[in-house]
Amino acid sequence: MNSSTYSRNRERVIAVAADLFARNGYHGTGIAELGKAVGLGRGALYHYIESKEALLYYISKTQVDSMNAQAEQALRSGLPPEALLREMARRLLHNIATHQAEWAVFFRDYSALTGERRDKVIAARERYEGYWRQALDRGVEAEVLRPTPRLLVKGILGMLNYTYLWFEPDGELSSDELADEFMDALLDGIRSDPR
Amino acid sequence: MNSSTYSRNRERVIAVAADLFARNGYHGTGIAELGKAVGLGRGALYHYIESKEALLYYISKTQVDSMNAQAEQALRSGLPPEALLREMARRLLHNIATHQAEWAVFFRDYSALTGERRDKVIAARERYEGYWRQALDRGVEAEVLRPTPRLLVKGILGMLNYTYLWFEPDGELSSDELADEFMDALLDGIRSDPR
Repeated sequence: MNSSTYSRNRERVIAVAADLFARNGYHGTGIAELGKAVGLGRGALYHYIESKEALLYYISKTQVDSMNAQAEQALRSGLPPEALLREMARRLLHNIATHQAEWAVFFRDYSALTGERRDKVIAARERYEGYWRQALDRGVEAEVLRPTPRLLVKGILGMLNYTYLWFEPDGELSSDELADEFMDALLDGIRSDPR
Repeated sequence: MNSSTYSRNRERVIAVAADLFARNGYHGTGIAELGKAVGLGRGALYHYIESKEALLYYISKTQVDSMNAQAEQALRSGLPPEALLREMARRLLHNIATHQAEWAVFFRDYSALTGERRDKVIAARERYEGYWRQALDRGVEAEVLRPTPRLLVKGILGMLNYTYLWFEPDGELSSDELADEFMDALLDGIRSDPR
Protein backbone atom coordinates (compact mmCIF):
# COMPACT_ATOMS: atom_id res chain seq x y z
CA MET A 1 0.00 0.00 0.00
CA ASN A 2 1.52 3.33 -0.97
CA SER A 3 1.30 6.37 1.26
CA SER A 4 -1.56 8.07 -0.61
CA THR A 5 -3.69 4.92 -0.28
CA TYR A 6 -2.82 4.87 3.41
CA SER A 7 -3.89 8.55 3.82
CA ARG A 8 -7.08 7.99 1.86
CA ASN A 9 -8.02 4.99 4.00
CA ARG A 10 -7.18 6.86 7.17
CA GLU A 11 -9.33 9.81 6.12
CA ARG A 12 -12.18 7.40 5.39
CA VAL A 13 -11.88 5.78 8.83
CA ILE A 14 -12.00 9.25 10.42
CA ALA A 15 -15.00 10.36 8.36
CA VAL A 16 -16.97 7.20 9.18
CA ALA A 17 -16.04 7.55 12.85
CA ALA A 18 -17.27 11.18 12.88
CA ASP A 19 -20.62 10.05 11.48
CA LEU A 20 -20.95 7.18 13.95
CA PHE A 21 -19.90 9.31 16.93
CA ALA A 22 -22.31 12.07 15.85
CA ARG A 23 -25.17 9.59 15.56
CA ASN A 24 -24.56 7.33 18.56
CA GLY A 25 -22.21 9.32 20.75
CA TYR A 26 -18.52 8.74 21.32
CA HIS A 27 -19.14 6.44 24.30
CA GLY A 28 -21.94 4.69 22.41
CA THR A 29 -19.73 3.68 19.48
CA GLY A 30 -17.51 0.62 19.78
CA ILE A 31 -14.32 -0.07 17.86
CA ALA A 32 -15.91 -3.28 16.54
CA GLU A 33 -18.83 -1.28 15.14
CA LEU A 34 -16.45 1.17 13.49
CA GLY A 35 -14.46 -1.68 11.97
CA LYS A 36 -17.65 -3.19 10.57
CA ALA A 37 -18.76 0.18 9.11
CA VAL A 38 -15.46 0.68 7.29
CA GLY A 39 -15.02 -3.00 6.43
CA LEU A 40 -11.82 -3.53 8.40
CA GLY A 41 -10.92 -5.98 11.14
CA ARG A 42 -9.62 -4.80 14.49
CA GLY A 43 -5.96 -5.26 13.53
CA ALA A 44 -6.33 -3.46 10.20
CA LEU A 45 -8.23 -0.65 11.90
CA TYR A 46 -5.41 -0.09 14.41
CA HIS A 47 -3.08 0.21 11.43
CA TYR A 48 -4.85 3.54 10.73
CA ILE A 49 -5.73 4.77 14.17
CA GLU A 50 -3.93 4.59 17.48
CA SER A 51 -7.07 4.39 19.63
CA LYS A 52 -10.70 5.47 19.79
CA GLU A 53 -9.67 8.51 21.79
CA ALA A 54 -7.11 9.44 19.13
CA LEU A 55 -9.99 9.47 16.63
CA LEU A 56 -12.03 11.79 18.83
CA TYR A 57 -8.99 14.02 19.17
CA TYR A 58 -8.34 14.08 15.45
CA ILE A 59 -11.99 14.84 14.61
CA SER A 60 -12.15 17.70 17.14
CA LYS A 61 -8.71 19.17 16.61
CA THR A 62 -8.87 19.27 12.81
CA GLN A 63 -11.87 21.61 12.75
CA VAL A 64 -10.64 23.89 15.54
CA ASP A 65 -7.20 24.12 13.87
CA SER A 66 -8.85 24.95 10.57
CA MET A 67 -10.84 27.77 12.20
CA ASN A 68 -7.70 29.10 13.88
CA ALA A 69 -5.83 29.16 10.57
CA GLN A 70 -8.77 30.95 8.93
CA ALA A 71 -9.04 33.47 11.76
CA GLU A 72 -5.29 34.19 11.58
CA GLN A 73 -5.60 34.76 7.86
CA ALA A 74 -8.63 37.05 8.32
CA LEU A 75 -6.85 39.03 11.05
CA ARG A 76 -3.83 39.48 8.76
CA SER A 77 -5.98 40.49 5.79
CA GLY A 78 -6.22 44.19 6.63
CA LEU A 79 -10.03 44.14 6.51
CA PRO A 80 -11.67 46.95 8.50
CA PRO A 81 -13.18 45.77 11.84
CA GLU A 82 -16.78 45.30 10.74
CA ALA A 83 -15.84 43.40 7.59
CA LEU A 84 -13.39 41.34 9.64
CA LEU A 85 -16.09 40.25 12.10
CA ARG A 86 -18.46 39.40 9.27
CA GLU A 87 -15.75 37.41 7.51
CA MET A 88 -14.94 35.44 10.67
CA ALA A 89 -18.64 34.69 11.25
CA ARG A 90 -19.09 33.55 7.64
CA ARG A 91 -16.08 31.27 7.80
CA LEU A 92 -17.18 29.68 11.05
CA LEU A 93 -20.75 29.05 9.88
CA HIS A 94 -19.48 27.72 6.56
CA ASN A 95 -17.16 25.31 8.34
CA ILE A 96 -19.94 24.16 10.69
CA ALA A 97 -22.37 23.75 7.77
CA THR A 98 -19.91 21.60 5.86
CA HIS A 99 -18.66 19.59 8.87
CA GLN A 100 -21.79 19.25 10.96
CA ALA A 101 -20.98 15.72 12.17
CA GLU A 102 -17.48 16.73 13.27
CA TRP A 103 -18.78 19.75 15.20
CA ALA A 104 -21.51 17.68 16.83
CA VAL A 105 -18.84 15.23 18.01
CA PHE A 106 -16.62 18.07 19.18
CA PHE A 107 -19.31 19.90 21.17
CA ARG A 108 -20.88 16.82 22.67
CA ASP A 109 -17.84 14.74 23.41
CA TYR A 110 -14.60 16.71 23.54
CA SER A 111 -14.88 16.46 27.33
CA ALA A 112 -14.22 12.70 26.96
CA LEU A 113 -10.66 13.53 25.89
CA THR A 114 -8.00 13.07 28.55
CA GLY A 115 -4.52 14.34 29.39
CA GLU A 116 -2.48 16.09 26.75
CA ARG A 117 -5.09 15.63 24.03
CA ARG A 118 -7.70 17.38 26.13
CA ASP A 119 -5.30 20.20 27.00
CA LYS A 120 -4.40 20.73 23.34
CA VAL A 121 -8.02 20.93 22.18
CA ILE A 122 -8.93 23.33 24.99
CA ALA A 123 -5.88 25.50 24.20
CA ALA A 124 -6.79 25.59 20.49
CA ARG A 125 -10.34 26.52 21.41
CA GLU A 126 -9.16 29.33 23.66
CA ARG A 127 -6.90 30.59 20.91
CA TYR A 128 -9.90 30.85 18.63
CA GLU A 129 -11.85 32.77 21.24
CA GLY A 130 -8.86 35.08 21.59
CA TYR A 131 -8.97 35.84 17.86
CA TRP A 132 -12.59 36.98 18.18
CA ARG A 133 -11.60 39.15 21.12
CA GLN A 134 -8.80 40.66 18.99
CA ALA A 135 -11.28 41.44 16.23
CA LEU A 136 -13.65 43.14 18.71
CA ASP A 137 -10.72 45.04 20.26
CA ARG A 138 -9.68 46.34 16.85
CA GLY A 139 -13.19 47.67 16.40
CA VAL A 140 -12.99 49.45 19.75
CA GLU A 141 -9.56 50.92 18.90
CA ALA A 142 -10.91 52.16 15.57
CA GLU A 143 -13.90 53.63 17.47
CA VAL A 144 -16.26 51.60 15.33
CA LEU A 145 -17.40 49.39 18.22
CA ARG A 146 -18.09 50.20 21.83
CA PRO A 147 -16.18 48.38 24.58
CA THR A 148 -18.12 45.25 25.57
CA PRO A 149 -17.70 42.79 28.44
CA ARG A 150 -15.10 40.06 27.96
CA LEU A 151 -17.73 37.33 28.27
CA LEU A 152 -19.68 38.64 25.28
CA VAL A 153 -17.25 36.75 23.05
CA LYS A 154 -18.59 33.51 24.50
CA GLY A 155 -22.13 34.71 23.78
CA ILE A 156 -21.26 35.50 20.16
CA LEU A 157 -19.59 32.11 19.76
CA GLY A 158 -22.63 30.44 21.34
CA MET A 159 -24.87 32.12 18.78
CA LEU A 160 -22.65 30.90 15.94
CA ASN A 161 -21.54 27.49 17.25
CA TYR A 162 -24.99 26.35 18.21
CA THR A 163 -25.91 26.24 14.51
CA TYR A 164 -24.32 22.76 14.43
CA LEU A 165 -27.56 21.59 16.06
CA TRP A 166 -30.08 23.04 13.64
CA PHE A 167 -28.53 24.45 10.49
CA GLU A 168 -30.12 22.97 7.37
CA PRO A 169 -27.84 23.09 4.33
CA ASP A 170 -30.92 23.13 2.07
CA GLY A 171 -32.86 25.52 4.31
CA GLU A 172 -34.09 29.06 3.74
CA LEU A 173 -30.70 30.72 4.26
CA SER A 174 -27.17 29.84 3.17
CA SER A 175 -24.54 29.78 5.91
CA ASP A 176 -23.20 33.13 4.60
CA GLU A 177 -26.65 34.72 4.73
CA LEU A 178 -27.21 33.39 8.24
CA ALA A 179 -23.83 34.76 9.38
CA ASP A 180 -24.80 38.15 7.92
CA GLU A 181 -28.19 38.16 9.70
CA PHE A 182 -26.56 37.29 13.01
CA MET A 183 -23.91 39.97 12.61
CA ASP A 184 -26.53 42.55 11.59
CA ALA A 185 -28.42 41.86 14.83
CA LEU A 186 -25.25 41.97 16.87
CA LEU A 187 -23.82 45.12 15.30
CA ASP A 188 -26.99 47.18 15.05
CA GLY A 189 -29.11 45.67 17.80
CA ILE A 190 -32.74 44.77 17.38
CA ARG A 191 -34.38 48.01 18.53
CA SER A 192 -36.58 49.75 15.99
CA ASP A 193 -35.20 53.08 17.12
CA PRO A 194 -31.52 52.69 18.01
CA ARG A 195 -30.42 54.79 20.92
CA MET B 1 -41.60 2.94 52.70
CA ASN B 2 -44.06 5.83 52.59
CA SER B 3 -44.62 7.88 49.48
CA SER B 4 -42.47 10.85 50.52
CA THR B 5 -39.51 8.52 51.14
CA TYR B 6 -40.14 7.03 47.72
CA SER B 7 -40.13 10.50 46.07
CA ARG B 8 -37.02 11.53 47.95
CA ASN B 9 -35.17 8.41 46.88
CA ARG B 10 -36.34 8.80 43.31
CA GLU B 11 -35.17 12.44 43.20
CA ARG B 12 -31.80 11.32 44.55
CA VAL B 13 -31.47 8.64 41.86
CA ILE B 14 -32.25 11.26 39.21
CA ALA B 15 -29.80 13.81 40.63
CA VAL B 16 -26.97 11.27 40.80
CA ALA B 17 -27.78 10.09 37.27
CA ALA B 18 -27.64 13.69 35.98
CA ASP B 19 -24.17 14.12 37.50
CA LEU B 20 -22.92 10.80 36.12
CA PHE B 21 -24.38 11.40 32.65
CA ALA B 22 -22.92 14.93 32.62
CA ARG B 23 -19.48 13.62 33.58
CA ASN B 24 -19.27 10.42 31.54
CA GLY B 25 -21.97 10.80 28.91
CA TYR B 26 -25.30 9.01 28.76
CA HIS B 27 -23.91 6.14 26.70
CA GLY B 28 -20.84 5.99 28.91
CA THR B 29 -22.82 5.43 32.12
CA GLY B 30 -24.05 1.95 32.97
CA ILE B 31 -27.01 1.07 35.19
CA ALA B 32 -24.64 -0.92 37.41
CA GLU B 33 -22.47 2.18 37.90
CA LEU B 34 -25.52 4.26 38.77
CA GLY B 35 -26.70 1.63 41.25
CA LYS B 36 -23.29 1.65 42.91
CA ALA B 37 -23.26 5.47 43.11
CA VAL B 38 -26.66 5.58 44.84
CA GLY B 39 -26.04 2.41 46.87
CA LEU B 40 -28.89 0.38 45.35
CA GLY B 41 -28.90 -2.98 43.63
CA ARG B 42 -30.32 -3.40 40.15
CA GLY B 43 -33.74 -4.53 41.38
CA ALA B 44 -34.08 -1.71 43.92
CA LEU B 45 -32.97 0.79 41.29
CA TYR B 46 -35.69 -0.34 38.88
CA HIS B 47 -38.13 0.25 41.69
CA TYR B 48 -37.46 3.98 41.16
CA ILE B 49 -36.78 4.21 37.46
CA GLU B 50 -38.28 2.43 34.51
CA SER B 51 -35.11 2.43 32.39
CA LYS B 52 -31.94 4.38 31.71
CA GLU B 53 -33.70 6.14 28.86
CA ALA B 54 -36.54 7.15 31.18
CA LEU B 55 -33.93 8.83 33.38
CA LEU B 56 -32.51 10.76 30.43
CA TYR B 57 -36.04 11.78 29.50
CA TYR B 58 -36.87 12.91 33.02
CA ILE B 59 -33.62 14.91 33.38
CA SER B 60 -34.16 16.67 30.03
CA LYS B 61 -37.90 17.21 30.20
CA THR B 62 -37.96 18.61 33.74
CA GLN B 63 -35.76 21.57 32.85
CA VAL B 64 -37.45 22.32 29.54
CA ASP B 65 -40.88 22.12 31.20
CA SER B 66 -39.71 24.44 33.93
CA MET B 67 -38.52 26.99 31.35
CA ASN B 68 -41.83 26.72 29.48
CA ALA B 69 -43.80 27.36 32.68
CA GLN B 70 -41.59 30.35 33.48
CA ALA B 71 -41.89 31.75 29.94
CA GLU B 72 -45.69 31.39 30.07
CA GLN B 73 -45.74 33.24 33.36
CA ALA B 74 -43.48 36.00 32.01
CA LEU B 75 -45.60 36.35 28.86
CA ARG B 76 -48.75 36.68 31.01
CA SER B 77 -47.13 39.18 33.36
CA GLY B 78 -47.89 42.28 31.31
CA LEU B 79 -44.24 43.37 31.26
CA PRO B 80 -43.39 45.68 28.35
CA PRO B 81 -41.44 43.93 25.54
CA GLU B 82 -37.92 44.91 26.53
CA ALA B 83 -38.43 44.01 30.19
CA LEU B 84 -40.07 40.76 29.09
CA LEU B 85 -37.05 39.74 26.99
CA ARG B 86 -34.69 40.61 29.82
CA GLU B 87 -36.80 38.62 32.27
CA MET B 88 -36.86 35.56 30.00
CA ALA B 89 -33.07 35.76 29.53
CA ARG B 90 -32.50 36.08 33.28
CA ARG B 91 -34.73 33.11 34.05
CA LEU B 92 -33.05 30.91 31.47
CA LEU B 93 -29.52 31.75 32.60
CA HIS B 94 -30.52 31.31 36.24
CA ASN B 95 -31.95 27.89 35.48
CA ILE B 96 -28.85 26.86 33.53
CA ALA B 97 -26.56 28.16 36.29
CA THR B 98 -28.41 26.17 38.94
CA HIS B 99 -28.87 23.00 36.84
CA GLN B 100 -25.66 22.88 34.83
CA ALA B 101 -25.39 19.07 34.92
CA GLU B 102 -28.98 18.61 33.71
CA TRP B 103 -28.49 21.04 30.82
CA ALA B 104 -25.20 19.41 29.84
CA VAL B 105 -27.03 16.07 29.69
CA PHE B 106 -29.88 17.59 27.73
CA PHE B 107 -27.74 19.34 25.12
CA ARG B 108 -25.27 16.49 24.67
CA ASP B 109 -27.55 13.53 24.82
CA TYR B 110 -31.21 14.32 24.19
CA SER B 111 -30.68 12.90 20.71
CA ALA B 112 -30.26 9.47 22.34
CA LEU B 113 -33.97 9.57 23.26
CA THR B 114 -36.24 7.51 21.04
CA GLY B 115 -39.90 7.37 20.03
CA GLU B 116 -42.49 9.25 22.02
CA ARG B 117 -39.98 10.49 24.61
CA ARG B 118 -37.88 12.08 21.91
CA ASP B 119 -40.93 13.65 20.27
CA LYS B 120 -42.12 15.12 23.56
CA VAL B 121 -38.77 16.70 24.41
CA ILE B 122 -38.45 18.17 20.91
CA ALA B 123 -42.02 19.52 21.07
CA ALA B 124 -41.35 21.10 24.49
CA ARG B 125 -38.17 22.64 23.12
CA GLU B 126 -40.00 24.07 20.12
CA ARG B 127 -42.65 25.49 22.41
CA TYR B 128 -39.97 27.34 24.32
CA GLU B 129 -38.52 28.73 21.11
CA GLY B 130 -42.04 29.84 20.17
CA TYR B 131 -42.33 31.81 23.41
CA TRP B 132 -39.19 33.75 22.55
CA ARG B 133 -40.59 34.43 19.10
CA GLN B 134 -43.80 35.70 20.73
CA ALA B 135 -41.80 38.04 22.95
CA LEU B 136 -39.90 39.41 19.93
CA ASP B 137 -43.17 39.76 17.98
CA ARG B 138 -44.69 41.77 20.79
CA GLY B 139 -41.74 44.12 20.61
CA VAL B 140 -42.27 44.54 16.87
CA GLU B 141 -46.02 45.17 17.34
CA ALA B 142 -45.23 47.77 20.00
CA GLU B 143 -42.71 49.30 17.54
CA VAL B 144 -39.97 48.87 20.12
CA LEU B 145 -38.11 46.24 18.09
CA ARG B 146 -37.48 45.97 14.39
CA PRO B 147 -38.65 42.86 12.52
CA THR B 148 -35.86 40.29 12.55
CA PRO B 149 -35.41 37.01 10.68
CA ARG B 150 -37.15 33.96 12.17
CA LEU B 151 -33.84 32.16 12.66
CA LEU B 152 -32.51 34.88 14.94
CA VAL B 153 -34.41 33.24 17.80
CA LYS B 154 -32.12 30.23 17.45
CA GLY B 155 -29.12 32.56 17.54
CA ILE B 156 -30.36 34.23 20.74
CA LEU B 157 -31.00 30.85 22.35
CA GLY B 158 -27.55 29.69 21.24
CA MET B 159 -26.02 32.69 22.97
CA LEU B 160 -27.92 31.91 26.18
CA ASN B 161 -27.95 28.10 26.16
CA TYR B 162 -24.27 27.75 25.45
CA THR B 163 -23.55 29.15 28.92
CA TYR B 164 -24.08 25.61 30.24
CA LEU B 165 -20.57 24.91 28.93
CA TRP B 166 -18.70 27.74 30.58
CA PHE B 167 -20.73 29.64 33.16
CA GLU B 168 -18.94 29.79 36.52
CA PRO B 169 -21.31 30.29 39.45
CA ASP B 170 -18.48 31.95 41.41
CA GLY B 171 -17.19 33.89 38.41
CA GLU B 172 -17.05 37.61 37.68
CA LEU B 173 -20.75 37.97 36.81
CA SER B 174 -23.93 36.54 38.32
CA SER B 175 -26.30 34.82 35.90
CA ASP B 176 -28.59 37.89 36.07
CA GLU B 177 -25.74 40.24 35.24
CA LEU B 178 -24.65 38.04 32.36
CA ALA B 179 -28.22 37.92 31.00
CA ASP B 180 -28.34 41.72 31.18
CA GLU B 181 -25.02 42.10 29.34
CA PHE B 182 -26.15 39.75 26.60
CA MET B 183 -29.47 41.54 26.21
CA ASP B 184 -27.75 44.94 26.16
CA ALA B 185 -25.59 43.78 23.27
CA LEU B 186 -28.55 42.28 21.46
CA LEU B 187 -30.89 45.23 21.96
CA ASP B 188 -28.46 48.07 21.33
CA GLY B 189 -25.85 46.39 19.16
CA ILE B 190 -22.13 46.77 19.66
CA ARG B 191 -21.43 49.76 17.41
CA SER B 192 -19.97 52.80 19.09
CA ASP B 193 -22.14 55.03 16.94
CA PRO B 194 -25.53 53.30 16.40
CA ARG B 195 -27.04 53.89 12.99
